[in-house]
Amino acid sequence: MKAARYYDRGDIRIENIEPQALEAGTVRVDVAWTGICGTDLHEYLDGPIFVPAHGHPHPISGEDAPITLGHEFSGVVSELGEGVTDLAVGDHVVIEPYIIRDSVDTGPESKDYHLSPDMNFIGLAGRGGGLSENIVVKSRWVHKIDKAVPLDEAALIEPLSVAYHAVQRSGVVAGQTAVVGGAGPIGQLTAAVLHALGVKVIISELSPLRRQKALDAGVADVALNPAEVDVVAEVKKLTDGKGADVAFECTSVQVVFDTLMDAVRPTGVIVVVSIWGKPATFDMHKLVMRELDVRGTIGYVNSHPDTIALVESGKIDLKPFITGKIALEDLVDKGFDTLINHNETAVKILVSPSGKGL
Amino acid sequence: MKAARYYDRGDIRIENIEPQALEAGTVRVDVAWTGICGTDLHEYLDGPIFVPAHGHPHPISGEDAPITLGHEFSGVVSELGEGVTDLAVGDHVVIEPYIIRDSVDTGPESKDYHLSPDMNFIGLAGRGGGLSENIVVKSRWVHKIDKAVPLDEAALIEPLSVAYHAVQRSGVVAGQTAVVGGAGPIGQLTAAVLHALGVKVIISELSPLRRQKALDAGVADVALNPAEVDVVAEVKKLTDGKGADVAFECTSVQVVFDTLMDAVRPTGVIVVVSIWGKPATFDMHKLVMRELDVRGTIGYVNSHPDTIALVESGKIDLKPFITGKIALEDLVDKGFDTLINHNETAVKILVSPSGKGL
Repeated sequence: MKAARYYDRGDIRIENIEPQALEAGTVRVDVAWTGICGTDLHEYLDGPIFVPAHGHPHPISGEDAPITLGHEFSGVVSELGEGVTDLAVGDHVVIEPYIIRDSVDTGPESKDYHLSPDMNFIGLAGRGGGLSENIVVKSRWVHKIDKAVPLDEAALIEPLSVAYHAVQRSGVVAGQTAVVGGAGPIGQLTAAVLHALGVKVIISELSPLRRQKALDAGVADVALNPAEVDVVAEVKKLTDGKGADVAFECTSVQVVFDTLMDAVRPTGVIVVVSIWGKPATFDMHKLVMRELDVRGTIGYVNSHPDTIALVESGKIDLKPFITGKIALEDLVDKGFDTLINHNETAVKILVSPSGKGL
Repeated sequence: MKAARYYDRGDIRIENIEPQALEAGTVRVDVAWTGICGTDLHEYLDGPIFVPAHGHPHPISGEDAPITLGHEFSGVVSELGEGVTDLAVGDHVVIEPYIIRDSVDTGPESKDYHLSPDMNFIGLAGRGGGLSENIVVKSRWVHKIDKAVPLDEAALIEPLSVAYHAVQRSGVVAGQTAVVGGAGPIGQLTAAVLHALGVKVIISELSPLRRQKALDAGVADVALNPAEVDVVAEVKKLTDGKGADVAFECTSVQVVFDTLMDAVRPTGVIVVVSIWGKPATFDMHKLVMRELDVRGTIGYVNSHPDTIALVESGKIDLKPFITGKIALEDLVDKGFDTLINHNETAVKILVSPSGKGL
């Protein structure tokens, strides 16, 4: 079958590979659509980072480069391994793409399996990937979705789960106000979750196209241009002088973080969703005197069922965030290059590994 | 009556002043004991900071230097203003020394009156102070205590409330493990609250005298010397490899903060209790990848009733932390100078403004 394989920085190849063997406790999923993630771009431009370099196998998967890419995907169950009773052939599903040691408790009460040692992702560190015609996954990581949800939109449930978990980390409740700093893909999806939960959403974003996307998609109540307005003053105006209840840092830019520290009310929460490649400077005095709360968030943990429910209920419409659909052969030319060079207009580009959806 | 008055940096005078007038809604408290706080030292060495400098009256109190010092104190009600029905002459009391606008909701459900604009403290920004023979205070800020609690120990309830609020901010529960970075007065009292709540306490402190004090007072289960041992490795050993659930930064030292970021488990909480005069550097990647939670804390908010209950129940013994008792005339020579020059042995020095307790 065809698959996109990461060999090294700048070296991704579309190849024919053997499908994985079905084992007890796993299912085979025929991949429908797979999104290209910022992490994939990062591996292509600066990697290997999450990908285990050739000769350095991942301690859990035992695999090293080349590996099959793709961790944001939807599909249809085509084969059931021994002992799998909660799924059926023909089920529409999405994958929670974790590679986690079998000894870790990944039960429904766990709040931290995603932070267990050596955790990594299917589609980055082995065990196949969504950028291939099919994949074999342990049934624990396969989530059934209603067939009323189009499979292309379902491919966005993985990044939406990142946003959902970030929102859960903030503790925000309906009727409160949130500021989202940065309206790239994760900022947009964070706004979508907040909006669906009844939170008032103020976006701060330099790009006019991204601001317009958030407004058109209906996920932002207000979109501010930080080059033109005083974001802190505007947020205060919009919150009766109090400041926002929570904020989401989705840029890894120092000035955005500083702005959010001022834009939230006393005892406000700032969730850092972005990956920072450098240390931040931090006004500890402000943290103390305003009793702020700065929280990290990464991935998701038992977040898929609630995230899927939000999509199934129609409270979140993922269609506006799909800005392109391409064939596997065009992954680098039409996918990665577009996202790198035209990242203001592109939100999520989907790949059809089989070509059937195109 | 006698009072210690702050004029300017390095200029504190013991003077005779007129007692304040009793007004409706206030009570007069004859001061028993008043603790010297690090904030008082800070005003003396580097101030005025909280104190409104001469010619710059505080926007709520309307007062400027000279002001009467002292915000950690106990006493006995000696006179009741009109309309005060919840207190009686002879009651033993402690003061929650806030100066807050009348328009702010300071009811029992409020979680943020201490963060209201221009908040300041009795004994720093006007409205009298504990370093005088008596003081007139609005009854809202007067908390009755059981007469079984010695009045000298009761003078420590104010800083203990700071510690109590810091512990509440952390969300720690009985059976969990906390690391306290720094065993100065607030570190010791934070350990005392944690211990009283059934939390295992690990202190990290350079000073052998302070480590010994925490062990002798029974508030630390373990006291580590960060110059001799790897604190992170020791904490992991003491927590089955997991790391502490919460940590308290009580030093305003970068390396202590960094250590605490590593000493807590994934999703752990670090509460910053100390006042930082400079920006911190901050490993945002670690915050994100370990889902840490860094929270500021300042003062207290509806914390006195629970704090007093812990002392009345005998779960916290404040006696070990009283390391000196002096007369008002000796405030600078025997009080401030001792704390500045011998701060390893001195925890809390108490002043008797009337001289009656000596």
